[in-house]
Amino acid sequence: MQFVLNSPLDMHLHLRDGEMLKNIAKFSAKEFAGSLIMPNLVPPVTNINSLLSYKKRILEAVGDEKFTPYMSLFFKSNYTADFLENAKSHITAIKLYPNGVTTNSEGGVEQIDIKKLSPIFEAMSELDIPLCVHGETNGFVMDREKEFCAVYKQLAVAFPKLTIIMEHITTRESAEILKRYENLYATITLHHLLITLDDVAGGLLNPHLFCKPIAKRHEDKEALLELALNADKKVMFGSDSAPHPVSKKECCGCAAGIFSAPIALSVLAELFDKHNKLTNLQTFVSNNARDIYKLIPIEKKIILEKKEWKVPENFYGVVPMFAGQSLKWRVKS
Amino acid sequence: MQFVLNSPLDMHLHLRDGEMLKNIAKFSAKEFAGSLIMPNLVPPVTNINSLLSYKKRILEAVGDEKFTPYMSLFFKSNYTADFLENAKSHITAIKLYPNGVTTNSEGGVEQIDIKKLSPIFEAMSELDIPLCVHGETNGFVMDREKEFCAVYKQLAVAFPKLTIIMEHITTRESAEILKRYENLYATITLHHLLITLDDVAGGLLNPHLFCKPIAKRHEDKEALLELALNADKKVMFGSDSAPHPVSKKECCGCAAGIFSAPIALSVLAELFDKHNKLTNLQTFVSNNARDIYKLIPIEKKIILEKKEWKVPENFYGVVPMFAGQSLKWRVKS
Repeated sequence: MQFVLNSPLDMHLHLRDGEMLKNIAKFSAKEFAGSLIMPNLVPPVTNINSLLSYKKRILEAVGDEKFTPYMSLFFKSNYTADFLENAKSHITAIKLYPNGVTTNSEGGVEQIDIKKLSPIFEAMSELDIPLCVHGETNGFVMDREKEFCAVYKQLAVAFPKLTIIMEHITTRESAEILKRYENLYATITLHHLLITLDDVAGGLLNPHLFCKPIAKRHEDKEALLELALNADKKVMFGSDSAPHPVSKKECCGCAAGIFSAPIALSVLAELFDKHNKLTNLQTFVSNNARDIYKLIPIEKKIILEKKEWKVPENFYGVVPMFAGQSLKWRVKS
Repeated sequence: MQFVLNSPLDMHLHLRDGEMLKNIAKFSAKEFAGSLIMPNLVPPVTNINSLLSYKKRILEAVGDEKFTPYMSLFFKSNYTADFLENAKSHITAIKLYPNGVTTNSEGGVEQIDIKKLSPIFEAMSELDIPLCVHGETNGFVMDREKEFCAVYKQLAVAFPKLTIIMEHITTRESAEILKRYENLYATITLHHLLITLDDVAGGLLNPHLFCKPIAKRHEDKEALLELALNADKKVMFGSDSAPHPVSKKECCGCAAGIFSAPIALSVLAELFDKHNKLTNLQTFVSNNARDIYKLIPIEKKIILEKKEWKVPENFYGVVPMFAGQSLKWRVKS
């Protein structure tokens, strides 16, 4: 059994830099036509020079593979309208991180003061630059996203022409407000469609399933599945694949992030197939992103076939999701 | 500044067996007059011969230190009234584990069928053998203890003469039902007075603070603090100190358990001192347990002095709570 995807897109991807970038970029490039690249390097990508040179390093790492890195800037509260106008042609989005809420988010926004930041959001609305948001407060770990919903609502109402992407949503509350505000959209990861806190900390503690936002409850997962499996127009796939070397995972003080790039499409195919929703996968992993971001990806056909394979235990010292396990679908090479 | 504790007791302790027992027993024996020893060895302690030989190994490991290991049996649904009558003089309690809910709980009770188990609970009531319970269902990790409260209520009502100890309580709900039923009592650990899920998984993931039941919310911690700091008659100290070698903690598939024995009294003194409740510490760590278990511990004076010291990074390959950190109080040797 085979299934063809036309130009699948991963609208939330961490490719890192240096040796890690060189090692792992190909896993996304092989399976996707393009990805929105997160800007939280150290230091973060906050100007066009560093963005273009990062893009060049990504393309070098990708090599011969046909793949578009859609670039994003790290939101800074001192961006001016002129800066944004200049940036417009080089970027696909700007990513806002509240300071300190996730890996390499230092230097993010201290407080989302809508009035103070209004000129930036107005300029982005005018220029039609989408705003991607890591939507977590610094509250209790299970409440952070729910608490942030108030900010999403304020942003949606105050800037009705701004395209706001709620990144990697994990809760029922996010799924609900998404439907209520026309200019709110969301990415959903693979792992948040599959796991709950039980998988991270319910039996033995599994550092390889530790991510931010942390996986929540069964009812939250169900709400996300409902959106994704039905390819709701408001949501698109964003893997949030985020590699860390094993030494930063199996240790005291394990970093947040799940490396799902090498298995993302295989597992999505298995999941959608299991729910008899395979026909919606194209919309979830490509068409919705085209509409939301108004982009036309390169032509790239990815053939998925129902053929068992075993996921390697690690890729260049990075342990992937489903390491050592068998998957039912694979990308035909 | 000094403070004397008379015969402090740790009413929930894992001493393990073999090499680990030999290495770590002294840390509890040094600071406590006695401890209730958990029976979840592999295989569990389910008969008097194995209980007595385990007790002997504990006393050997303890050496010259004055210390009483109060022994407990691992609850099995086939215990008879005769068996219990025989066991009575050798044991302090029987510990009930629902099957599979925590470390080495395999072989525990599959289903707590009150009617079926009634003869055992009746016999324990008659013989005045306390029932210690690991009170968790196999539900969602944050709900397991709350869900188990229904079982505690049923037990309390059905066997009003049975002394029921809710072990290592972690939630506001447990703190509440404890007050409502005369024959319900509880142990509270050190770590559940100090940490929430935020400390385990809110920043980096900290395997050394991963335990069962998992640390809950701030309001839960506050409810436990209220009970402990006021030395509520219904609660007593039980460290649940549970050593694992570092290879089982900093890895993929980290075991649940916090090793707090070497720092328990120091940190309790600091905590009670901080809240101006130092005068209640004696009741919390000793007197309440004497009343609940009707036991008279050996005479043992422990002097706590306000003098800074640094906790070693590990003890025989086991990383303790507060490893490498400075503590304000210490046990005078």
